[in-house]
Amino acid sequence: MKRSPLAPTKFPKIKALDGVLMGTSATAMKYKGRDDLLLVSFPKGATVAGVFTTSKCSSAPVDWCRGVLRKNKPARAVLVNAGNANAFTGKAGEDAMTSTIKAVSDTLSCDLDEVYVASTGVIGEVLDATVINDHIAETTGKLKSENWQDAARAILTTDTFPKGATVTTKIGSKTVNINGFAKGSGMIAPDMATMLGFIFTDASIGPEALGSILKEATGGSFNSITVDSDTSTSDTVLAFATGCEGMINDANDPVLDDFKQKFFALMLDLSHQVVRDGEGASKFISINVNGAENDLAAKKIALSIANSPLVKTAIAGEDANWGRIVMAVGKAGEKANRDALKIHIGGQKVTEHGMGLEDYDEHKCTEHLKGQEIEISVHVGIAEGSATVWTCDLTHDYITINADYRS
Amino acid sequence: MKRSPLAPTKFPKIKALDGVLMGTSATAMKYKGRDDLLLVSFPKGATVAGVFTTSKCSSAPVDWCRGVLRKNKPARAVLVNAGNANAFTGKAGEDAMTSTIKAVSDTLSCDLDEVYVASTGVIGEVLDATVINDHIAETTGKLKSENWQDAARAILTTDTFPKGATVTTKIGSKTVNINGFAKGSGMIAPDMATMLGFIFTDASIGPEALGSILKEATGGSFNSITVDSDTSTSDTVLAFATGCEGMINDANDPVLDDFKQKFFALMLDLSHQVVRDGEGASKFISINVNGAENDLAAKKIALSIANSPLVKTAIAGEDANWGRIVMAVGKAGEKANRDALKIHIGGQKVTEHGMGLEDYDEHKCTEHLKGQEIEISVHVGIAEGSATVWTCDLTHDYITINADYRS
Repeated sequence: MKRSPLAPTKFPKIKALDGVLMGTSATAMKYKGRDDLLLVSFPKGATVAGVFTTSKCSSAPVDWCRGVLRKNKPARAVLVNAGNANAFTGKAGEDAMTSTIKAVSDTLSCDLDEVYVASTGVIGEVLDATVINDHIAETTGKLKSENWQDAARAILTTDTFPKGATVTTKIGSKTVNINGFAKGSGMIAPDMATMLGFIFTDASIGPEALGSILKEATGGSFNSITVDSDTSTSDTVLAFATGCEGMINDANDPVLDDFKQKFFALMLDLSHQVVRDGEGASKFISINVNGAENDLAAKKIALSIANSPLVKTAIAGEDANWGRIVMAVGKAGEKANRDALKIHIGGQKVTEHGMGLEDYDEHKCTEHLKGQEIEISVHVGIAEGSATVWTCDLTHDYITINADYRS
Repeated sequence: MKRSPLAPTKFPKIKALDGVLMGTSATAMKYKGRDDLLLVSFPKGATVAGVFTTSKCSSAPVDWCRGVLRKNKPARAVLVNAGNANAFTGKAGEDAMTSTIKAVSDTLSCDLDEVYVASTGVIGEVLDATVINDHIAETTGKLKSENWQDAARAILTTDTFPKGATVTTKIGSKTVNINGFAKGSGMIAPDMATMLGFIFTDASIGPEALGSILKEATGGSFNSITVDSDTSTSDTVLAFATGCEGMINDANDPVLDDFKQKFFALMLDLSHQVVRDGEGASKFISINVNGAENDLAAKKIALSIANSPLVKTAIAGEDANWGRIVMAVGKAGEKANRDALKIHIGGQKVTEHGMGLEDYDEHKCTEHLKGQEIEISVHVGIAEGSATVWTCDLTHDYITINADYRS
């Protein structure tokens, strides 16, 4: 699969984080000639937080992570494999997962519930624990601190490029770093089961504060992107904080203001990279909705536009067919004032007073749609609610990739 | 556009209904070389009922029909044009519509509020009333009673075949007929703004009873189909009853039992024809969900499967990728018991106990998917709620049709 035309030019330079060590190896479980297993280990006492899929059919690894997070214990490791989601695999899948967790805890001499897991790939095939376990020792032996790109590569499935990001901030007078990587080609390319994100910081932040920062940042980043409206059984974002001294336990402490901003910027960067690698994507689309009844209503309208196959195909066809945006606003089920609705495409107003603008310049609009970065703004004329979501267009390549993915 | 491979072999033979007269003509407003304007007239006293889009940006004709229906007056005519939806056209669109209604009422010597209208086509372009009005006299002059196929053809847009149906039933000892035609290529191909249905019967049924029968039949037919999850600004189904003597006013009167069954069968037939003409469709897919918390939950799960681009592309690719069905159940947001979930494809069980069946015969499943009629059954293991919805697959042709529809 060739690299997405929307991909960033290169993987960023990411510095080591004290005590965060990564090892990768090739199990050949599904992918040949590439690493597909990642182990990350943390120093004793690392804080952890997580957000997960809302699917009612969540995978064994998601259920495991949710369970151990509740204990509020530190994390020592996270094990990730690509190619098999170990989702909808019943008791056999759970047993396989537990066996890999035991292999990691044996090797690192830690408790079972200090080990986190994430699996991504086909749904419905039981993970082969033997193959994973045969590679745990090798992977542990290769643990090192600067191989971020290798780590980001090992977790990919249908992705066409590795996704990493890094930011530096200060907490009080202390400089801290936040690094992260993610995979997903589509928020949501569900049977690739699918979106994973891992964020690491050397800041000293307690688990509850980290959880609340992660949850808030997820709302405006990974939960504001969509490729095809499908939600994976395995979506997982885990955040780890390794600076264990002088822990900050209150997410609202003003000393964290810049940290939270930078943390969010990093999550947003990673989530946009996922959209830029959306299956078949040729355009990156930002959709701003304002004037809605409230922020939730605005997000629902924005997602209705972002998920509309007809809006997405029109943009793929560089066709300024704004009637489809009207349709998507209308079907969202949220309050909208037809006669006050204003639509802008690429900064140009196209509708007003419940109809198309008379002197609207379709040529200018088409020129904008010929670009790779598309901007749609919609004012629905009710109140002050606003939201922004990001998506990509719907192309022939999406059909090609998904009409025969398993074979 | 070539005829859908899922189309019925021919248009049914439909008999005249006393006093129901149809005329068609060619305005050349958008389509060349074909009729695109339909006028149907009724004898004095005909009952009328309607159901409409839930869009918050409904078209001028939808708003007009809703308004006049509230008056509970008889209907004398319905005027339909294809190629322009007159949706999101503000005051200018309303004025244009009112002018065409006036032209019909003048020609037929009836009140304005005895005239119904429906427009289907591009959103956002004001209807040219002059062109329509120039053809009203010609169309009225051609009114006759057996040209059902011509009428069904005149309202088409991207449809590849005209959609008609007829049934005969008895009310008491009296034989009555129900005829109908519809258009839509996709429930929902929104900027073709889009699904229209017209049902005619010579039964004597009061407006409230007709409304309640129509509403109930719509739930299980036109409201249980989806092509691309997009909802038009113009969806309209109107029913007219012309037998004006001895009116039955109670929809629950047992004398109507067979009538209601046949009425529903006709609506179901027409709605299935719309799916069979879904843009780019190569497979007709029935999705049965049972074991849900209630019928509404079952329908939500069924629609989640039916609207999933990944399920639809897998079926297009004849790929028995049942993990995507699990995903779609999981994302529906309704209660589902992962470990009790049972999926059947083409009558063959593929999952049980929260995992794939060990002796499941993928070859047999693939054979089923190579056919044109696909059956998916899902039991979600919660309670007794059930629903069936119908959809089609998502193919390259859908992208081709919609990526550059207007040009």
